Amino acid sequence: MVQSDLSKQRLEFVPNIPKDWEHLDRIEVVEQEAISVDEDVRFSFPQTFSQKPLRFSLGEKKEHDRLRVGVVFSGGQAPGGHNVVVALFEALKKLHPKSELLGFLNGPKGILADDFKVLDSALLAKYANQGGFDLLGSGRTKIETKEQFAKAKETILKHRLNGLVIIGGDDSNTNAAFLAEYFIKEKVSCSVVGVPKTIDGDLKNTHLEVSFGFDTATKVYSELVGNVCFDALSAKKYYFFIKLMGRAASHIALECALQTHPNVTLIGEEIANSQKTFWQIVEDIAKVICQRADDGKNYGVILIPEGIVEFIPSFRQLTLELNRIPLQQFETSEEKLNAVKKHLSPKALGDFVRLPETFQKQLLIDRDPHGNVPVSKIESERLFIEAVKKELNYLKHQGRYRGVFKPQPLFFGYEGRCSLPSNFDCAYCRLLGLEAALLIHAKKTGYLASVANLSQPVERWQAHAIPIVSLMHFEERKGKKVPVVKKAHVDLQGAPFHKFEKHREQWMLSDAYRYPGPIQFFGPDGLTNAVSETLRLERS
Amino acid sequence: MVQSDLSKQRLEFVPNIPKDWEHLDRIEVVEQEAISVDEDVRFSFPQTFSQKPLRFSLGEKKEHDRLRVGVVFSGGQAPGGHNVVVALFEALKKLHPKSELLGFLNGPKGILADDFKVLDSALLAKYANQGGFDLLGSGRTKIETKEQFAKAKETILKHRLNGLVIIGGDDSNTNAAFLAEYFIKEKVSCSVVGVPKTIDGDLKNTHLEVSFGFDTATKVYSELVGNVCFDALSAKKYYFFIKLMGRAASHIALECALQTHPNVTLIGEEIANSQKTFWQIVEDIAKVICQRADDGKNYGVILIPEGIVEFIPSFRQLTLELNRIPLQQFETSEEKLNAVKKHLSPKALGDFVRLPETFQKQLLIDRDPHGNVPVSKIESERLFIEAVKKELNYLKHQGRYRGVFKPQPLFFGYEGRCSLPSNFDCAYCRLLGLEAALLIHAKKTGYLASVANLSQPVERWQAHAIPIVSLMHFEERKGKKVPVVKKAHVDLQGAPFHKFEKHREQWMLSDAYRYPGPIQFFGPDGLTNAVSETLRLERS
Repeated sequence: MVQSDLSKQRLEFVPNIPKDWEHLDRIEVVEQEAISVDEDVRFSFPQTFSQKPLRFSLGEKKEHDRLRVGVVFSGGQAPGGHNVVVALFEALKKLHPKSELLGFLNGPKGILADDFKVLDSALLAKYANQGGFDLLGSGRTKIETKEQFAKAKETILKHRLNGLVIIGGDDSNTNAAFLAEYFIKEKVSCSVVGVPKTIDGDLKNTHLEVSFGFDTATKVYSELVGNVCFDALSAKKYYFFIKLMGRAASHIALECALQTHPNVTLIGEEIANSQKTFWQIVEDIAKVICQRADDGKNYGVILIPEGIVEFIPSFRQLTLELNRIPLQQFETSEEKLNAVKKHLSPKALGDFVRLPETFQKQLLIDRDPHGNVPVSKIESERLFIEAVKKELNYLKHQGRYRGVFKPQPLFFGYEGRCSLPSNFDCAYCRLLGLEAALLIHAKKTGYLASVANLSQPVERWQAHAIPIVSLMHFEERKGKKVPVVKKAHVDLQGAPFHKFEKHREQWMLSDAYRYPGPIQFFGPDGLTNAVSETLRLERS
Repeated sequence: MVQSDLSKQRLEFVPNIPKDWEHLDRIEVVEQEAISVDEDVRFSFPQTFSQKPLRFSLGEKKEHDRLRVGVVFSGGQAPGGHNVVVALFEALKKLHPKSELLGFLNGPKGILADDFKVLDSALLAKYANQGGFDLLGSGRTKIETKEQFAKAKETILKHRLNGLVIIGGDDSNTNAAFLAEYFIKEKVSCSVVGVPKTIDGDLKNTHLEVSFGFDTATKVYSELVGNVCFDALSAKKYYFFIKLMGRAASHIALECALQTHPNVTLIGEEIANSQKTFWQIVEDIAKVICQRADDGKNYGVILIPEGIVEFIPSFRQLTLELNRIPLQQFETSEEKLNAVKKHLSPKALGDFVRLPETFQKQLLIDRDPHGNVPVSKIESERLFIEAVKKELNYLKHQGRYRGVFKPQPLFFGYEGRCSLPSNFDCAYCRLLGLEAALLIHAKKTGYLASVANLSQPVERWQAHAIPIVSLMHFEERKGKKVPVVKKAHVDLQGAPFHKFEKHREQWMLSDAYRYPGPIQFFGPDGLTNAVSETLRLERS
């Protein structure tokens, strides 16, 4: 790693925290009213189901124990992660200079393999306010089996850890809750604390306003989408089909739409709700393109959430039926095609044969390790381009389309996961890290660090902690009903979607593009500390 | 268009200019020593070949005429273009309040169709320091035929224009030189002034340091490449094959490499010079991937300039031979394949059959309007991924590769052409616009506005103007030798390439990634006014 001038400048930055938090040794953890927990979930968490939410308040100065704590990044990267670790270290050392922090390497598998590095201030000084998870690396291993639990226990005991901080998304926090439960049962005195991380923005509920990383990542994507909107408007030549990360929910696409006003934005949750078929969506897009062509506009921008095809009921039905056909038995594409024609229901077959040839083949040939169609690998931006092309050709023959269609596929995802965190994510993550340390000092386990009032200035932020079990519900995974942290989908009754709904007709035809520009770290407060539209609309 | 907070902030920004330029009414145009012009070029430009370079100096205040001027964007977008127009207007109005500026719409075809808008300060106030060319739109029409020249003359005469400012790249400036010549011959008293625009950075020579837009676009791409480097390093899972814009030259890829230190960067000019075949390059990349796998590293970042395949001699030979086979005569892919086997030279055939199947098909099926293989449409990042995959499979079977190869194709291009211009491009473009106005006042035609000492602080910048003919040489276009503005390729003896060469071995294996971050408009001077590494190394 070689530091750029901006990286160096960011190292010097000290993110704001609420004033009380300057006195870490006076912060007390206070129990609040219990939140209701799903009856079935209780059954799976006999040790932790009754935990009450916590808040923090300023009390008398008190002595703190020397602690040994482990920390791990789990799952996809999100800007701000380093600040959680840096602040966790800051708090541990402030509360007891001899406390120690271990970082497990390359995700939870680092816990299982006892692969770690001891963190010190010299090393951490290079990571404050920097993007990426490269201090420790990350990984997607889950701690699920009996053997894995035992291995985790072994590592914890070996290092005599008083606490383990898991920085992760919904699945990682599900894991954290199970680990907390297991450690109590096994009489391992180690607090497990989760920190809500995911750029997708789908880890939130009444008590959790937003996960860290969403703010920065959507700002990066909005910068790029805004730029592309003005490229479309300047050259007047291309239709950009931009796929945006976000598989299970369309929060990223919605936030980018609110920031940049592209002509069309598909929202997976709305499509699922409307029961539209793939071809109805294609027809909708083609209709907008026709209308714009009638206005002399043969350009535009269309946002497509990465997970879109999984939201389309007819597409889901098609893949479900395809999964049931043992296509591996057939060799040539012709034989496979015949099998498909024989076994698919008429409706699914109709959907299938209308698909562009490349994608038909992809559906026939590719299978994931479980023998299923690998839906997540379908390049939906290209699928829509091919399908819209087909539809426009049809409309052209009918004399209903008089334009020229030059599409360009784009995908924005990886470039937003490790960018320099915005001031918002820097400050949010610092507070989350401080909280995690205090929760461990207070011997609280199975909690998710959290902050309320995030749409307000930092001074009014309210740190609190949520029992992870309270975020859970039952879901089918690999054919079994299991308790998991619930993913938050775009709320079709919520303020962000309402704002989108109100304006989208106008954005479709007029070019009301908006240009948020790159994240600014210096300059006017309104610029450097602006929160996402989603958070602002939901919470203020 | 809806203005974001940052857009609004940028509207308020006043880019620096050298102090003399605060007194526009005292700036004089001074002839300098003649530069030598290619003998053949002289023959094509009997009216303008003897023009001398110009500089500007501060003299006595003098009266300026009322002028009518036209301006047009030509070719691909580049950040800063709006500032040229805004400053041109600023200068015209300062020098004579009744001067007028017409903007031709959607590129040179706006001149031919007499499609324009009259620019006023209220309209222009919305475009200062903004990206895009959306004020006027742009286009790629060239003014080449007799009829087009006559049409342009008609428009100029109709509006009684004293000057026409063409904001464009090498081809557009070739056009500008021909127009200047034609207007003199036709006794149309209208100055034609070019402004050097292109993000590709291939419009430069001894007298022209850089085109505008290169600075901003490479900063945007470097931000993204840097982010992706840290994503690779954090997840340790993917090889990112990033295609970067830049078809005729690899300046963008080189600048991004110097800014971010990816593991491999292909430089077209070096490949052309080394006479490496496509498969030798693939083997080189696979070798790096093997070595990194031996170090336990199954991730990395590889930069590929958009135009790479056109630089590879063997690939060029293959497409040349393919162009000669009348594949349209054959219907099925099998017949086409047979024809190819029959007509290709053994060497070309060897290259062809080793190509991944998808790309073989692309080469057989797709033809551009001239019947040629559309090389520019080949998705080189995906071509290299497929080829490297093939090579790694081979090496795995040989026991020489023990890694896991998960590639991700990315393309950064459109998102950099219309971003908010950096302070550098804002200031550079402002000075270019002011110059253009003064050149027209001085009745100078066939000149390119330019600035020297750009790697120094603005105060030391030296505005000057170059006869466009002095940038020309002869090239074959559509089978005919014609004079054109010469494209600047990456100089393999130049300082930027030398620096890259010196470090690339280290960047290959160690992860010396660097993170330039988003463009900053506020904050420390070193950040907000940093110039590109290419410019710094070439000129300071």
